[in-house]
Amino acid sequence: MSAAAQIGVTGLAVMGRNLARNFARNGYTVAVHNRTAARTRALVEEFGHEGEFVGTESAEDFVAALERPRRLVVMVKAGEPTDAVIREFAPLLEPGDMIVDGGNAHFADTRRRERELREQGIHFVGTGVSGGEEGALNGPSIMPGGSKESYEALGPMLEKISAKAADGSPCTAHIGPDGAGHFVKMVHNGIEYADMQLIAEAYQLLRDVAGYSPAEIADIFRTWNTGRLDSYLIDITAEVLAHVDAATGEPFVDVVQDQAEQKGTGRWTVQIALDLGVPVSGIAEAVFARSLSGHQDLRDASRGLAGPKAEPLGKAEAAAFADQVEQALYASKIVSYTQGFHEIAAGSDAYDWDIDLGRVASIWRGGCIIRAAFLDRIRAAYDARAELPSLLADESFAREIGEAQDDWRAVLVAATRQGVPAPGFAAALAYYDALRADRLPAALTQGQRDYFGAHTYRRTDREGSFHTLWGGDRSEVSA
Amino acid sequence: MSAAAQIGVTGLAVMGRNLARNFARNGYTVAVHNRTAARTRALVEEFGHEGEFVGTESAEDFVAALERPRRLVVMVKAGEPTDAVIREFAPLLEPGDMIVDGGNAHFADTRRRERELREQGIHFVGTGVSGGEEGALNGPSIMPGGSKESYEALGPMLEKISAKAADGSPCTAHIGPDGAGHFVKMVHNGIEYADMQLIAEAYQLLRDVAGYSPAEIADIFRTWNTGRLDSYLIDITAEVLAHVDAATGEPFVDVVQDQAEQKGTGRWTVQIALDLGVPVSGIAEAVFARSLSGHQDLRDASRGLAGPKAEPLGKAEAAAFADQVEQALYASKIVSYTQGFHEIAAGSDAYDWDIDLGRVASIWRGGCIIRAAFLDRIRAAYDARAELPSLLADESFAREIGEAQDDWRAVLVAATRQGVPAPGFAAALAYYDALRADRLPAALTQGQRDYFGAHTYRRTDREGSFHTLWGGDRSEVSA
Repeated sequence: MSAAAQIGVTGLAVMGRNLARNFARNGYTVAVHNRTAARTRALVEEFGHEGEFVGTESAEDFVAALERPRRLVVMVKAGEPTDAVIREFAPLLEPGDMIVDGGNAHFADTRRRERELREQGIHFVGTGVSGGEEGALNGPSIMPGGSKESYEALGPMLEKISAKAADGSPCTAHIGPDGAGHFVKMVHNGIEYADMQLIAEAYQLLRDVAGYSPAEIADIFRTWNTGRLDSYLIDITAEVLAHVDAATGEPFVDVVQDQAEQKGTGRWTVQIALDLGVPVSGIAEAVFARSLSGHQDLRDASRGLAGPKAEPLGKAEAAAFADQVEQALYASKIVSYTQGFHEIAAGSDAYDWDIDLGRVASIWRGGCIIRAAFLDRIRAAYDARAELPSLLADESFAREIGEAQDDWRAVLVAATRQGVPAPGFAAALAYYDALRADRLPAALTQGQRDYFGAHTYRRTDREGSFHTLWGGDRSEVSA
Repeated sequence: MSAAAQIGVTGLAVMGRNLARNFARNGYTVAVHNRTAARTRALVEEFGHEGEFVGTESAEDFVAALERPRRLVVMVKAGEPTDAVIREFAPLLEPGDMIVDGGNAHFADTRRRERELREQGIHFVGTGVSGGEEGALNGPSIMPGGSKESYEALGPMLEKISAKAADGSPCTAHIGPDGAGHFVKMVHNGIEYADMQLIAEAYQLLRDVAGYSPAEIADIFRTWNTGRLDSYLIDITAEVLAHVDAATGEPFVDVVQDQAEQKGTGRWTVQIALDLGVPVSGIAEAVFARSLSGHQDLRDASRGLAGPKAEPLGKAEAAAFADQVEQALYASKIVSYTQGFHEIAAGSDAYDWDIDLGRVASIWRGGCIIRAAFLDRIRAAYDARAELPSLLADESFAREIGEAQDDWRAVLVAATRQGVPAPGFAAALAYYDALRADRLPAALTQGQRDYFGAHTYRRTDREGSFHTLWGGDRSEVSA
């Protein structure tokens, strides 16, 4: 077998298969390999006409089929299966070769694997891939971490197979060393959770408060999709809401069980934010909303709890309310992205990754689930001022959220009064109001902590740490 | 040296010292030991008159001073220092001896240590201790995990030194095997974070919306402390708010920097809840509120953001509003405890701990930071129905929160309109409204997930998992 393939993909479930086809369709010769060889043969048989595939049956053949330095893409389940593949292939590789992990690994695992393989001279490139099956085939957003050298060898190929933004630029770039790529992909997913939760709340308010049907709400989302909310998720929301269940003739959304499921990355985003001390309340509420929905026992036990019943608005008021919901959704979305980018900045600082936040926004403009016109605005904000301490400090986002806030408050007042849960909108507004507050009651919290635990406090008027002798004469001592 | 001490304490910083004195004052002979012997000598010198201490300078002497089976209490920093102490003492112990870790360990570390020491026949008793320095000396709430046998040997002593509830019962009980004690202590601290955040929000609303001064608010808290909110934290809030800074003559709370600090346990409570799939939104908002307060750079960058300026109410309206805030605080507190006890129940299920939730409430009635009349109500709720799926399913809590909800909503409407951040109140209400909702928009979320990721959904009208061919003719297939 000649070492002719420029890239290899092992793990040929749907994501791996589609990624392999994407490389082949772009003119690369692709070695393919799978634990069970039947899948490899099926791929070559079914899609061989799309480009140059080299089907291989053993790990040795697979490695031998790759030109050097080898580029070996692993598309298996995150966790132990990834480690198993590494244990299998690493001994067959040589210094300079690259293992590209395209799964949803936890960035801490990626950091460990990168460190271990670096000792052998092998580049381990933890890479976020977003866009689902369809994106993998036709152009995903790709977030590679790992060494700069590995990006030199991989980047041109990734740029070729990735989605392209409206301005033609590829939706991939070197994110930063070791775990940076998987970290950024994790936060991408956390933001996706928040986006979906905000959309869900907007839908429920339009349904219960405004009194619209799912079909009418689909039309509203379609209209929104022509404006500043233009995005893949708003687009598919309209599609889902417009869909009618064939079996019952009911709106599809009404026959689906209202218990949302989740995988790990939303949860990780919140857990890591807590470690980094970054408030990501909007993402947290989105994760909690999913887990709450699944606790059918608690929900059943709470059915009789007292509360208002939402009274649908009249036609004219409903239309005005829908406009207010658009403002609330947009403002809350600005906050979600503010929190998510804050987490990326904090991760970049903590791990010395030197991540270019504008570039992250830039490569999310196409291919991934949260792709949206909005991301070009974020790119522009960071391009204008790389050291932006927060998206809310960008003049144009600050202006927009300022203009939206009256309506945002009105929507939350309606939700609160009518008993429609809107945890994402509420968390976003509380974050906004807390950040702009002159004084926070955290001063009282510090006073309490000093009272019961002698944890000390700082003063506004001079340097140092102080403790009040609460159990004594209440004089103050330096701590 | 005779082996006469019934208990030993190693690690004589303030918590360890006070716990040792507590044992001695209760008639036990206490062997004491510290890495630097000067501290041991100082303790015996200063407090020797309070009871029987056996000062020891080496690990060997310390162990030799203890009667068998040995009870060795470790009061050092959580993490590596605890492991170091175990490595030092375990080789000197014999089967049946007990190591009691009274620090704030992560329950996963406690599980590991318990497992490792069990192989040597040593009982490792991870034990939550709450009440701060003062509690350690005069009676803390004590939450021991570990084996039942170890509780037989330790329980009577812990019951003696612990706080007593109003009905005279000791504020300690065997929580459950291995990490159960530290898990429950962790959730205790998470609830403490939520309690403090809710109090902080109530204070800020009374200040900004009602227009009260800190001294006036102190009086309001004093009044609340005579009712159903009667608790240590409400009590000390009044003390802190009434306090006047001697240096400036200003209210103390106005000269303290409004940046709250935190240790690990609040964060852990949220992280573990995420792993267990338990929504603890109120606790999460409390942790985030602290971290947000500390991001001075973001706060400075957000100063100019648009928002309403709160307009203080007139005198009569202010008093009425204060009553509403009491309702909102109480209702939100019920939700916090509902979430916290849900987490304990989920942990108990996940780790087979068989925790008696009523007993947990019972031993928090005294000694600890969240001690409150309220906990006797929780104890009663679980005593009446051990399998209560949620505190909100308890008739009397459901009735109270139902009666409070109009005022709760009114307070949140005021906060929303006037721009006073109330993330804890808002998260609690959203949780309440979500649990009692007939339908949640999680159905839309599932539809979206099926659209972009073929994640499938379930239907309300028949069993099975389904997928809609969104990219095709939109027919439905069984998955």
